[in-house]
Amino acid sequence: MSIATARSTETPTLAVSTVIFTLRPNDSGALQLATPLVRRIRAPFEGQWALPGGPLQVNEDLATSASHTLRDTTGLEPRYLEQLYAFGSVDRAGGASAERVVSIVYWALVGADEAELAIDSENVQWFWADELPRLAFDHNQIVEYALGRLRNKLEYSRIAHVFLSEAFTLAQLREVYEAVLGRELDPGNFRRMVESTGTVEETGEVLAGTRHRPPKLYRATIQAGETK
Amino acid sequence: MSIATARSTETPTLAVSTVIFTLRPNDSGALQLATPLVRRIRAPFEGQWALPGGPLQVNEDLATSASHTLRDTTGLEPRYLEQLYAFGSVDRAGGASAERVVSIVYWALVGADEAELAIDSENVQWFWADELPRLAFDHNQIVEYALGRLRNKLEYSRIAHVFLSEAFTLAQLREVYEAVLGRELDPGNFRRMVESTGTVEETGEVLAGTRHRPPKLYRATIQAGETK
Repeated sequence: MSIATARSTETPTLAVSTVIFTLRPNDSGALQLATPLVRRIRAPFEGQWALPGGPLQVNEDLATSASHTLRDTTGLEPRYLEQLYAFGSVDRAGGASAERVVSIVYWALVGADEAELAIDSENVQWFWADELPRLAFDHNQIVEYALGRLRNKLEYSRIAHVFLSEAFTLAQLREVYEAVLGRELDPGNFRRMVESTGTVEETGEVLAGTRHRPPKLYRATIQAGETK
Repeated sequence: MSIATARSTETPTLAVSTVIFTLRPNDSGALQLATPLVRRIRAPFEGQWALPGGPLQVNEDLATSASHTLRDTTGLEPRYLEQLYAFGSVDRAGGASAERVVSIVYWALVGADEAELAIDSENVQWFWADELPRLAFDHNQIVEYALGRLRNKLEYSRIAHVFLSEAFTLAQLREVYEAVLGRELDPGNFRRMVESTGTVEETGEVLAGTRHRPPKLYRATIQAGETK
């Protein structure tokens, strides 16, 4: 956010930022939630990491602004964005700036195929969502809020399928749940939970391989990517 | 919103508005959802009804601004407000104003005890939420969005209890559901649904009166007013 370019104490400035999550394997090979951040190159919080975003242009809709600044700063173009929340506490710059900025924040999930940062720069990087440094403004709180929304949505939507191929094993689905929730789940309980919700169905195929009893493949019962 | 007082084509203006619902008996004696509106006294949309709200002051938090303008315009002071959504389409004034306004909208429910408009004016009135006139800006859409959120929340939260006394009959609870959902519900199915969710429990008392078989009284199993 280039909030230092237009200082004003008269009216709050409006910015639009985006929290994006993907799942990637960590050093132990387990999936873990990651989010891209952009290093600020001007005051306030110069040199600190922040969510991708920028000031709202007068001729841009909110979601258009989110997509636009996201593309410009990270190269990411998620298939959908959803509005998360407007953050506007008077003290969210923590005294680092006299300017009042209200941020309307979007969030998105991207699958492995979409998660390439087209911007190759030391100022744009993926971070593990639960191991963030101290971010600019109240952006740590914003990521926490987005994590809460994601975890909540996991319970009552098909959101996990954004991270999976069209056909997947229950073990793969459970791995996504474990990565998002940040804790291990009992395989038996997980199988019963999934079967009781009716969100997946057997494809009739099994995972190709050399195992004696290859695991069954499943698919989501409604379109993957739906989040409402 | 006094958006005509400070015109700018440089940066969007930020306003905070609030949708409040209450339940009141209509002419047939059935409960119906009502929302308070304020008549605009300046351009654009002069003379048309609009949601209570106003421009965000630089020294006010978002929820504080919502409470403050709500109190000033309607006299209402709901026990809690929750952020609904930020509305910011470029064309939301429909050509009636050159100024771009982004509205961060809050919503609230008020019980009968809180629903008195302290401002006695022909420019502040309650309307039935499903019989609104053409409102200023995109405020009809905003009320529709708030209705959707309310109806959705009814399904998985204790929100109905905001409209009830501490002890209530299942018929009274069903009347609230019917008013919010805008359709009649089968009493037997409703009873089974409520019993299966465990959101209410018997108080051990019955409704005082002269009937031979007075109906049982229930209470919410967690604090009324909780909405998450």
